[in-house]
Amino acid sequence: MKISKPTLLLDLEKCKNNIKRMAKKAKKNDLIFRPHFKTHQSIEIGEIFKEFGVDKITVSSVEMAQYFAEAGWDDITIAFPFNPLEISEIEKLSDKIDLNILISSLESAEKLIKLTSKTLNYFIEIDAGYHRSGILADDIIQIEKTVQLLSKHNFKGFLTHSGNTYQAKSIDEILIIHQQTTSIMKDLKSRFIMQFPKIISSVGDTPSCTLAENFEYLDEIRPGNFVFFDLMQYHLGVCDLTDIAVCVACPVVDINRERNQIIIYGGGVHLSKEFLMQNGKRNFGQIVMLNKTGWQKSTKISLLISLSQEHGIIQASEELLNKISIGDIIGIIPIHSCMTANLLRKYKTFNNRYLYHL
Amino acid sequence: MKISKPTLLLDLEKCKNNIKRMAKKAKKNDLIFRPHFKTHQSIEIGEIFKEFGVDKITVSSVEMAQYFAEAGWDDITIAFPFNPLEISEIEKLSDKIDLNILISSLESAEKLIKLTSKTLNYFIEIDAGYHRSGILADDIIQIEKTVQLLSKHNFKGFLTHSGNTYQAKSIDEILIIHQQTTSIMKDLKSRFIMQFPKIISSVGDTPSCTLAENFEYLDEIRPGNFVFFDLMQYHLGVCDLTDIAVCVACPVVDINRERNQIIIYGGGVHLSKEFLMQNGKRNFGQIVMLNKTGWQKSTKISLLISLSQEHGIIQASEELLNKISIGDIIGIIPIHSCMTANLLRKYKTFNNRYLYHL
Repeated sequence: MKISKPTLLLDLEKCKNNIKRMAKKAKKNDLIFRPHFKTHQSIEIGEIFKEFGVDKITVSSVEMAQYFAEAGWDDITIAFPFNPLEISEIEKLSDKIDLNILISSLESAEKLIKLTSKTLNYFIEIDAGYHRSGILADDIIQIEKTVQLLSKHNFKGFLTHSGNTYQAKSIDEILIIHQQTTSIMKDLKSRFIMQFPKIISSVGDTPSCTLAENFEYLDEIRPGNFVFFDLMQYHLGVCDLTDIAVCVACPVVDINRERNQIIIYGGGVHLSKEFLMQNGKRNFGQIVMLNKTGWQKSTKISLLISLSQEHGIIQASEELLNKISIGDIIGIIPIHSCMTANLLRKYKTFNNRYLYHL
Repeated sequence: MKISKPTLLLDLEKCKNNIKRMAKKAKKNDLIFRPHFKTHQSIEIGEIFKEFGVDKITVSSVEMAQYFAEAGWDDITIAFPFNPLEISEIEKLSDKIDLNILISSLESAEKLIKLTSKTLNYFIEIDAGYHRSGILADDIIQIEKTVQLLSKHNFKGFLTHSGNTYQAKSIDEILIIHQQTTSIMKDLKSRFIMQFPKIISSVGDTPSCTLAENFEYLDEIRPGNFVFFDLMQYHLGVCDLTDIAVCVACPVVDINRERNQIIIYGGGVHLSKEFLMQNGKRNFGQIVMLNKTGWQKSTKISLLISLSQEHGIIQASEELLNKISIGDIIGIIPIHSCMTANLLRKYKTFNNRYLYHL
């Protein structure tokens, strides 16, 4: 496998297992599985989902919806607040496929009705505690007004993203957030189901979709990150290190033996500048050793302590320093795979295929 | 100016002024001006530098060198430690243009001589206190051995990047680092000049190149970020807010009036996740109001407090909330323009031209 610069490696087997597990869980719990494609943004990786029966997807921009629609996906939810400036693109796409947009407030709904005469499918975004966007679950008046205002449009149900699970301190805390979200979504749906018998409740985040076993009262899950997982998910307790399906291959360009540091070609433009705090220090990725079919963890801890635009600095264990020479390639498991994939734009598999990102 | 999604705006006049000022300073101080093109990575922006007499450039990867060589630049320094895995690309490019590579250690030099029979131009990278890469300035033995080992190659001089100016707490501290760097580079050059009469000393960072007035004993400057500047440089005291030449136009997609928050289409995949700490809070960018010819600061402080993949959350002042509606566009001055330009990949000027990034 010829690699000479930072390259995003994809372990297809791990990726397929991650998809398989989530698809199985959705089926077992009688849930619509509408995976979020913002993590991989790849038509070829999208094809793998089809093998597991997926025919509905989630994206986070109109551009991404257009990209996957071109590739044949015909049932897409844009899980991002309705952007009035893209109304004409939304209308065009709605003529071609089953497109769902997201309305996050009454004010946003007011904007929508001024801009279109078409009938669109919409979810109402509910803020179940994350406080990023959406109508607060207990603001029933605003929800009712929004639904009334959009009476000419097609109300598909309630959608929430419990991104607050990413701040959880334990698995238990993630499961508590999931329970609270479920209870909120259940109440809302039951309040509106008589008037709108077809509405569903849709939840999204990878931590709770991966860890929870109870999905009673929910209709749809939209996790995205699970397709690859990453170091953030591992540290949350959501996955094993061996479940992570992506890794960045980085050439070793120098070694500083006085400071026990390895300098790699691999910086913020490859890995992104996301970090985790470990023992009071920033860590920008997990070092692994590459082989012909995959990677494995180096036994003694080495930290990727700093990233500039193209350089990465590894504070290396003796063990790693003894193994590594200039011209070798080291693997870095990313902190946040969505950001890394977005930067590197293509995936290299271990059978030497390239899969492309939007 | 039709904008419907996050768009990198370039104020060409500010950009030209930044280039003009630095070119003038280089001329006044009899310095070779070899600007670093890693910030803009744009052939069209490169053309502007030509108007100010620039004919030598710096880049941070072989790929970038190839890109600018294709566009006619024929004197390029790759200011990144020599990557043995790209030796064949380096050899090819060296046949076509005046290419300088960087040797950061004796170990790296040993690797080079095993890999090539060609004569290459090289700088020795000196660590003058930043401690990222390079040979420590006082490790004369290692420097001498490196020069001896590379005797068949063409020694161009000493190169350093004082990236530690970015951690400085004051302008004075930046100037002290500049003085120390100058003194280190002066000593080194004088030690080797008899043996190598043509060697030069080359320094690089935007903070010291912008703030310092004394460049005695130095031969070349390689600043890069100054072409746009950014919020990091502004907070260091390196530039005025009005010198910053780039800004990301972000659609307002929702407003939460209970929390005084504005939700924009503009996240980590547009702005990067770099932040500054301000009053104990993370700030991911400076909010500005856009007009037809540029932007201006909103008088009351509003902070971009959080970014996810596509969403940004502004904690807004009353003044900003009263001005803004869903469907408007807000400007965000980036924390780190290099990272933002790398993510957004093209620039839109106020006369509606697009300039492209590598």
